[in-house]
Amino acid sequence: MTKPSPHAPLSDAALDQLFREARTHAAWLDKPVSETTLRALADLTKNGPTSANCCPARIVFVVSPEAKARLEPLLSKGNRAKTMAAPATAIVAYDLRFYEKLDRLFPHEPSAPSWFTSSEAKIRENAFRNGTLQGAYLILAARALGLDCGPMSGFDAAGVTREFFPQGDVEANFLVNLGYGDPAALKPRLPRFSFEEFCAIA
Amino acid sequence: MTKPSPHAPLSDAALDQLFREARTHAAWLDKPVSETTLRALADLTKNGPTSANCCPARIVFVVSPEAKARLEPLLSKGNRAKTMAAPATAIVAYDLRFYEKLDRLFPHEPSAPSWFTSSEAKIRENAFRNGTLQGAYLILAARALGLDCGPMSGFDAAGVTREFFPQGDVEANFLVNLGYGDPAALKPRLPRFSFEEFCAIA
Repeated sequence: MTKPSPHAPLSDAALDQLFREARTHAAWLDKPVSETTLRALADLTKNGPTSANCCPARIVFVVSPEAKARLEPLLSKGNRAKTMAAPATAIVAYDLRFYEKLDRLFPHEPSAPSWFTSSEAKIRENAFRNGTLQGAYLILAARALGLDCGPMSGFDAAGVTREFFPQGDVEANFLVNLGYGDPAALKPRLPRFSFEEFCAIA
Repeated sequence: MTKPSPHAPLSDAALDQLFREARTHAAWLDKPVSETTLRALADLTKNGPTSANCCPARIVFVVSPEAKARLEPLLSKGNRAKTMAAPATAIVAYDLRFYEKLDRLFPHEPSAPSWFTSSEAKIRENAFRNGTLQGAYLILAARALGLDCGPMSGFDAAGVTREFFPQGDVEANFLVNLGYGDPAALKPRLPRFSFEEFCAIA
């Protein structure tokens, strides 16, 4: 069923939860993240747009003590304690052979793989760009579900790739701790640019 | 003011608007996007998380007939008509000298620039990853404000960089048409992966 268009803006409370009051968290309440919630999170995330619906993101949710122990030594030192304390950590990766699935994901255009495969650099650029977009959709979908996030680039990406994606072709991109953040542990929000400092209207 | 934590999930109507029923649009209702709305969009977008708050995205909103005429020849043929018809097009770019602003954006850690500047490749990777995350925040912030989006990678990125960012250091990443989409012009949603096809729980 198609809803009326145009849509109204979401409520101020929703905009606060997604953007204005949402914060990166490093301290977590003692409240687990269920498999049901992780599946709901993936189910929202996957709807976000990618080039020719190429959907290159591959995600491992690290939850068990065994998997956490495999991840811990690959984290930057400053990211270890908060990641081990998080109820779950999403390893956001991308599949460099994403174009092999386009016959299913973009079935009306048989030439779609050729849009990406002119060079290794082009494949990598598109896997990285679109896989990163999907990682951002995951962050905002998590917030939409009431979760808090702690995204991180400080880790041994090659090591995480070897440890969690040993099959080859899939490479780790960034990590997102997931849980229910402790608001008492937050420091004031860091500055942002003014409109004119990062935007222009032409 | 800090709201109670944990948050509740957003309403189903909000999840539909952001993810489940949101679609990439190519046909637009005859309804402009005001400068007020573009400023509100930027104001939400800028809150999203980036590595060390590095905020590398730079955005030009193409609105005027003159700016559209500069963009048109740089688009892939299949992207021209829908982009010229869109009320606005965001050129999402990234600043390769983003680390020069960390003294303001991450003031408590004077060594933060050195986390990014060990090589040109590292600078570029971080500008691209974080600038792309911010582009995804823009897409979802637009939907949160009731706008519809049409993101595109099909254009001459080097040409758009030369035309819209002639100062150097800022490079075009992708484009997002913005407006109020015509739901009557939508085709059925393309397939997505099942949970097991792109996710795992470890």
